[in-house]
Formats: sequence, structure tokens, C-alpha cells
Amino acid sequence: MAVYTEVPDGDLAAFIAAYDIGEVISCKGIAEGVENSNFLIHTGTGSYILTLYEKRVHKEDLPFFLGLMEHLAAKGLNCPTPIKARDGIALRELCGRPAAIISFLEGMWPRRPNEKHCQQVGAALADLHIKGSDFPLTRPNNLSVGGWRTLVANTRDRADEVKPGLAAVIGDELDFLAREWPRDLESGVIHADLFPDNVFFLGDRLSGLIDFYFACTDFLAYDLAICLNAWCFEPKGEFNVTKARLMIEGYHRLRPLPDAELTALPILARGAALRFLLTRLYDWLNHPPGAFVSPKDPLEYLKKLTFHQQAKSVAAYGL
Amino acid sequence: MAVYTEVPDGDLAAFIAAYDIGEVISCKGIAEGVENSNFLIHTGTGSYILTLYEKRVHKEDLPFFLGLMEHLAAKGLNCPTPIKARDGIALRELCGRPAAIISFLEGMWPRRPNEKHCQQVGAALADLHIKGSDFPLTRPNNLSVGGWRTLVANTRDRADEVKPGLAAVIGDELDFLAREWPRDLESGVIHADLFPDNVFFLGDRLSGLIDFYFACTDFLAYDLAICLNAWCFEPKGEFNVTKARLMIEGYHRLRPLPDAELTALPILARGAALRFLLTRLYDWLNHPPGAFVSPKDPLEYLKKLTFHQQAKSVAAYGL
Repeated sequence: MAVYTEVPDGDLAAFIAAYDIGEVISCKGIAEGVENSNFLIHTGTGSYILTLYEKRVHKEDLPFFLGLMEHLAAKGLNCPTPIKARDGIALRELCGRPAAIISFLEGMWPRRPNEKHCQQVGAALADLHIKGSDFPLTRPNNLSVGGWRTLVANTRDRADEVKPGLAAVIGDELDFLAREWPRDLESGVIHADLFPDNVFFLGDRLSGLIDFYFACTDFLAYDLAICLNAWCFEPKGEFNVTKARLMIEGYHRLRPLPDAELTALPILARGAALRFLLTRLYDWLNHPPGAFVSPKDPLEYLKKLTFHQQAKSVAAYGL
Repeated sequence: MAVYTEVPDGDLAAFIAAYDIGEVISCKGIAEGVENSNFLIHTGTGSYILTLYEKRVHKEDLPFFLGLMEHLAAKGLNCPTPIKARDGIALRELCGRPAAIISFLEGMWPRRPNEKHCQQVGAALADLHIKGSDFPLTRPNNLSVGGWRTLVANTRDRADEVKPGLAAVIGDELDFLAREWPRDLESGVIHADLFPDNVFFLGDRLSGLIDFYFACTDFLAYDLAICLNAWCFEPKGEFNVTKARLMIEGYHRLRPLPDAELTALPILARGAALRFLLTRLYDWLNHPPGAFVSPKDPLEYLKKLTFHQQAKSVAAYGL
């Protein structure tokens, strides 16, 4: 929930004038996305999202993110597409920040994900992996093992403020994952943040995927492991094995999972749980008082990690 | 900037189903309005604002606010109108809160108000007063002298934390205003909060007024005094007498100001400055740490109050 930058109306009108989308007749800051400033704008030709990229997004990554959205949309994946101005350029500048206008996607994200949602998310993720397979750019995942190590170093001293013993659990898990992390699974473009608030539905039908600003190049099956963490635990923390099975089956139908990926799923799920535990822990320890965004509870991911640590095989996920 | 209530998608769909506005296809929390939760929704028939009334708005005042918007819109004032559901009822409940769907008004509020804006705001305010003159409901202004007295009592002990000597300045001013406040000016419906973020423009043309949730029954000229405070000071604090003159003339052309109102303008402007000084001071001293909304600087209104204290007559406002 965030609008970090105020856009003066004159600056906005001048910015929009570079495009062939009509004049702007309305502009509302929207309370979604914690990384950037997002505005829902109406012009004579329809609705668009104006995004100003704030400091947590690296400018040099923007061609990857915007290029990926354009690539996927051109292949028929329902996702936002950067709009090009008359000069053919989509990535511009507004109020001293990189900025882009993105097509607006109708749909609503599910506040209470159910089994049907999970099945469709699995299928949509496989579709994204297939359609992304010939995207020419790459971007290393800076939130994989090396990134976790940095986050561990930056949270170790204060982790026990959140829960006594947490630093030791995290240190042991990092050692384990650094040693056991897979090396030779199929890599490609992954979304890397496909949480419920990034998946839109119209009625019961999945209508699109948004927010590609964590997308990167990594093991495809790791993306599925992230989704298992994000979608298949109930609000009180229990794992819903039916949701997991439906999600994996939904994925498998479009992109059959090789045995090596099925075997690796428990450890990939541990890695995904550690990744969100660490970023949440870091934000928890470092959020400025009075910030707009309330930090999310890191311990939700400690519980999830504990579940995956006990998983002996993919059978724990319903297969 | 605020969305206080999360609306589950199922609850939203059920709520919208009571209306004849089509199915909801998008719903974004918008970062405007500090009192309520506002969502910009798209349905098959267009755009609407869904407002959930949070605790600072008293439920018993809502028929006044919604009735006034309906009354003014029916008279041709461009302002949001409550949409009635199929049962004829506009004020409903969602997520345990009073809630209404309001027509969506295109336009943008001016981040840098200029002279043309001020002139049109004066005219729009007079238009509002004329069109509101036969609105049958009344609502006392609980932020007039009596309300200031309560706010003074609730801020006196800590006012000097913000600026040494502030409590004494405020106490003296309240005494003065309580003694000298006008008694027999023309009363009627006033907006009472017509700040730049509540006035929309399309290009250079005023396109509508929003946010009637402070509207009440009080001296019409007091509303003009509020606008002089809200629109006619420059960012560094100087009073712009040209803006003021244009605003007053814009008003006067539609609703000629009687001599008594012109004479009272300096004291009404002092009252308006004290009102915003006090509410900002209260919020400054009482905002919870980590709140979404950053409190506004109360001392901006101390400077404005000082200007009005030195005004000997309406000549100080350019007339």
C-alpha cells in the first residue's frame, strides 16, 4: 500500500502528451504494490496504470521487467503490457524517477484463495514458464542462496528480538540449503513473487498475472515452490495438501514436471520459505517508524519452513 | 492516503449484486481521503467510488452528507452522487461498516493552485451555497467556536511541545473569537473543507467538487474564509492577495456578498485558521506511531492566523 511520489498535474499532462492515448481525465494513487508508486489513470481511450519506480527497483533491471511483460503479452499471456509513446519508447522519466504507462488489467485478486484458484494458478505458472522460454534477456535471481547469505548476515544480530533462537534456526537452514541446493534443474524466466495479490480473477476464472518486478532467471520448479508457500497454507498455518496437489497437477498438465524437479520440490520449498522469512525479517527489523507500509509477519514463514523441513518427499505435497 | 478496510472479493460481489450497475470487474483501494476507505471500482457500466465510512465519520450524519450530494447533483452541481441499489437505498453496510457507492467524477485536483483556479473556486463555492439554500436537512458545525473550545482543552497541556508559547497564542485567540464571533450572518449549507484536493479540474476548467463529509450548516461567508486559507497562501507562507481578490470576486459575481459579510471576513478567516490549526495540532499530538497518514504541520496555520490577525479590513484581501 503505497504512493511515494506526488505527481503535479502539469507534469502529468506533459508526460501523457508524449503518448497516443488521449488526454488524462483522472488520476488516482492506488494503494497496491509496496515497491513503487502506482496510479490508475483514465484517459479518453481507457484505463492505464502509471508506475513510478522507487528506489527499491534498480533502474538497470527495468528493461528486463518491461521487456518480459511485452514478450509474454505478445505470446497471449494475460498480463500488463508497457505502452510505447509516439517515439517508440516505453521506459521514460517523471518527477525524477523512471516511469512507464502499463495497460490496465481488469480483475480482482482473491482475498480467500480456494482450491479452484490454486489449480488455475498452477496452470498459469506453467503457461508463463512455457511462454517465457524464448525470452532473450536474463536476470540473475539476487534472492537465491547468495542473497540469502547477505540477508542472514544483515539480520543475524537482531533476529532473536523477533523470536529467541531464530538466528540459529536460520543459520542452520542456510548451511543446509547452501550444501544441498539443486544445481542442474531446468532454468528459465520465473515470476518469483506470484502471491495471491498478483493473480487476478473474474468470477472463478483466472484473468491475468501482474507485478513482474521480481522476475528473474532461475529454476522453473522454484517458482512452483514459491506458489506452494504463498497459496497452500491456511490462515492459521496448516498446510492444505489438496490445494497443493491441485496446483502441482494444474502445472504438470501444461508442463510435465521431470522427476528431478519433483524430487527437489521439498528442498525448493524450504528455500522459498527461507527467502520470504529473511526479507520479511529484514523489513521487520528495519522499517522506519511511521512508514506507510506495515511490515508482514516473518514468523508466518518460520512455520512454513518447519513444515517443509519435515517433508520427506513430494508425497508431502499430495502427489 | 488511506485504505483501512480490506474487502473480501466474495463480500464485494454480493454487495454490488444489490445494484443495477453490472458486475464488478476491478476494485482498487485509492490513496485519497484520510477519513474513509475509498475504492475505485470498474463495473460493466462504468466507474464508481465505493466508500466505507470509518470511525471518524458519525453514522447519524451520513443521511445529511449523502442527501446533500444527491440534492446538489440534482440541481446541476457537478459533484458525486450516491447510487441507489434496486431497493432504493443508497446507504448500506459492507464489512461491518456503513458503505455507499458514489458516482465517479473525472478530473484532477490542482497540486499547484493558480489564480485561475482561485477565481473558479470562488464561483463554484457561491454556486454550492445557492444550490444548497433549499436543502431541507441541517447539521450543526461541530468545528465552530464550541468545538474549538473542546480542542483547546484537549491540546493545551502539550501544545508547547510543538512550539513554545503556542498554548497561550491559541488561548488568547479563542477568547477573542468567542467574544467577537459574528452572530447574525446568513447561514446555510457550507462545504467546510474545500481544499485543493477536493476540487477537480479538467485542463483549466473546474469540473467538480468532492468530499462533502465535513459539510454542515453555518455562515456562508465562513466557507469563503476557509477557502481563502486553503487556496491563497503560497507554499512558503506569503499571502497572495491577487488570488484572494479573484476568489472573492468570483464568489461575489454569483452571490453578492452583503456588507456585513465583507466586514466580518477578517474575523471569519481568523476562525478558519484557528480551526485547522487546532485539528492539525490535535492530530499531530495524537497520531499513533506507524499510522498510514502523516499528520499535517499545524504551524502552517499559525502563520496564516498571524496574517489574519493583522488584517484590519477586507482591504487586506484585495478588495
